[in-house]
Amino acid sequence: MDFAAEMKRLVARVERGIDLHLPAADARPARLHTAMRYSMQAGGKRLRPVLVLATAELFGITDDRALPAAVALECVHTYSLIHDDLPCMDNDDLRRGRPTAHKAFDEATALLAGDALLTHAFALLAGNYADDSTLARALLAELADAAGSRRLIGGQMEDLLAEKNADATADDLEFIHRNKTAAMIEAAFALGALVGQADEPAIAALRVAGRDIGLVFQIVDDILDATASSGVLGKTAGKDAQAGKTTYVKLHGLATARGIAVERTESAIAALARVAADTRFLTTLTRELIAREK
Amino acid sequence: MDFAAEMKRLVARVERGIDLHLPAADARPARLHTAMRYSMQAGGKRLRPVLVLATAELFGITDDRALPAAVALECVHTYSLIHDDLPCMDNDDLRRGRPTAHKAFDEATALLAGDALLTHAFALLAGNYADDSTLARALLAELADAAGSRRLIGGQMEDLLAEKNADATADDLEFIHRNKTAAMIEAAFALGALVGQADEPAIAALRVAGRDIGLVFQIVDDILDATASSGVLGKTAGKDAQAGKTTYVKLHGLATARGIAVERTESAIAALARVAADTRFLTTLTRELIAREK
Repeated sequence: MDFAAEMKRLVARVERGIDLHLPAADARPARLHTAMRYSMQAGGKRLRPVLVLATAELFGITDDRALPAAVALECVHTYSLIHDDLPCMDNDDLRRGRPTAHKAFDEATALLAGDALLTHAFALLAGNYADDSTLARALLAELADAAGSRRLIGGQMEDLLAEKNADATADDLEFIHRNKTAAMIEAAFALGALVGQADEPAIAALRVAGRDIGLVFQIVDDILDATASSGVLGKTAGKDAQAGKTTYVKLHGLATARGIAVERTESAIAALARVAADTRFLTTLTRELIAREK
Repeated sequence: MDFAAEMKRLVARVERGIDLHLPAADARPARLHTAMRYSMQAGGKRLRPVLVLATAELFGITDDRALPAAVALECVHTYSLIHDDLPCMDNDDLRRGRPTAHKAFDEATALLAGDALLTHAFALLAGNYADDSTLARALLAELADAAGSRRLIGGQMEDLLAEKNADATADDLEFIHRNKTAAMIEAAFALGALVGQADEPAIAALRVAGRDIGLVFQIVDDILDATASSGVLGKTAGKDAQAGKTTYVKLHGLATARGIAVERTESAIAALARVAADTRFLTTLTRELIAREK
C-alpha cells in the first residue's frame, strides 16, 4: 500500500464531494453560500472525512455511498472552526493560512455561514440516505450526539471556561479533549462503519480507535502549539502558553505529553487490529498523526 | 370549543415537553445547559410548538407522540433568536421582557447555547422516533430544510443585507418573510402532519396555511413595531423605522399592509377548510394572530 497515494486519492474524493454536496455559490443568498464554500474549500487536512471514507472502504464501500456522510462531518467540523474563530471566542484572524470567515466577510455572515453548515450536515444525511431510513436515522443520531452539548459544543464550552481558570485539572482537560476533538474523530469511524453495515464488535473497536486517535490528535496539537512556528502551522502558534491555557504540555510537560500520545497510538492500533478487514491505511494514518509537524 | 382553554392546555404541554426534553441544567457543562434552558424557558407565545401539537391532534395524535417534534422546532426557533440578538446581528438587550442570552451570560456562551439548541433539535428527532425510521428521516429532512441556508438562515442573511440597503424591493421582502418567518411556521404544520401520518393532499393544504400564517405573523410584527410600545411588546419597539429597515409598513403603508394580512388570513382559513378534520382551533388561532397586540 502506497500511503501517500491512498491519502491523495481519498482527499481528492472529499474535495469533489464538498463541491458536489454544498449549495451553489450563486444560490440565494449568494453571500451566505459563498461564505459557506469559502470556509469549506480552504483546504486543510480533511482528516475526518477521509476517515469516514477509509472506514467505509474496510467494509467494501468503494463507491460514493459514504461521501455525503463524509461531507456532512466536514461541514460540522468547519462550522465549529468558524464559530471558534469569532471575536467572542478565540478571536483568530488566520485559519489554514487564510483570513478567517469573519475577516474575509464579516461577523454576522460568518455566524450565519457556521449555522448553515451545521444545518446542512443534517440535511445531507436526511436527503442522501432516503433509500435506507434505518441507516439515515442512525447516521443522524450519531452526528447529532457527537456534535451536541455534551460532546463537541460541551468541549468548546469547557475549553473556554478552562482558559479563564488557571486551576483547570487533568480531569477538565480530559473532558475537553474527549469531547472537543475526539468526539468528531470517533464519529468519523462510526459514520463510516454504519454506512458499511459493520457489525457491533467492529463498530465498538473502531470507536475505541477513534477516541484514542482523537486524543493523540489533540495532544500533538498542544505540542505543536508549544514548539512549532506560525509559518509552519498556517495559524498563530504559541497562543496556548500566551493565554495561560491548560494543555497537555502545561499539565504534564513535553516528554510526558509525548509519552501519552505514544501510548494512545498503540492502543488505537491494537483496536484497529481487532477489525476483520485490511486496516493498513488506517494504521499507517494513525502512526502519521503522531509524527505530523503541522 | 373554548379557544383560550385549548391554547392554555397546549402551551402547558409544550412547557412540560421543554422541561422533559432538554438536557438537565446541571449536566456538564452546567453553564451551557443552564443557558439553553434560560432561553428556552423564557416564555413567549410558543406558537410553533403549539401548531405542531394542534396539527397532530387533527389526525388523532392526542398523546405525547408529537411532543419531541414540537420541542425540536422550538429549539430551532430559540437558537435563531439567540443568534439574532447577538451584537454582530441585531444587538438586542431585551427579549420576551428579559435580558437576552448574551446579556444574561456572555457572548460566547450565547453563541454556543444557540449552536447546542440547533443540534439538540436534530438529536430529539433522531432519538425519539427510532421506532419508525421512515418517520424520523422525514421529520429530520423537513426540519433541516426549513432551518437551512435557503430558508430560515437565508432569510436572516437577506434581512441583514436589506437593513443596509435602502433600495430593498418587494421581492427582497417577500424572500425574507417567506423564509425567515414563514419557513418555521410551515414546518410546524408539516411536522405535526407527518407525525399524524396525514395524506399528501392534507399535508399540501397545511403547508399553504403555514406559509400564509407565517406571512400574516410577520406583517403583524412589522405593524406592531411601527405602532406599539416597547412595554407592551416586551422588546424594543420602533427599531425598524429607526434603522430605516424595509418592512411591509414602509413599503406599502399601514393600510395596505393590513389589507395583505387580511387577504392571507382568509387564504389560510380556506386552506384549513380543505383538511378533512376538526380545524376549528387552528382557524380561530389564525384569526387571533391578525388581531394580536404584541
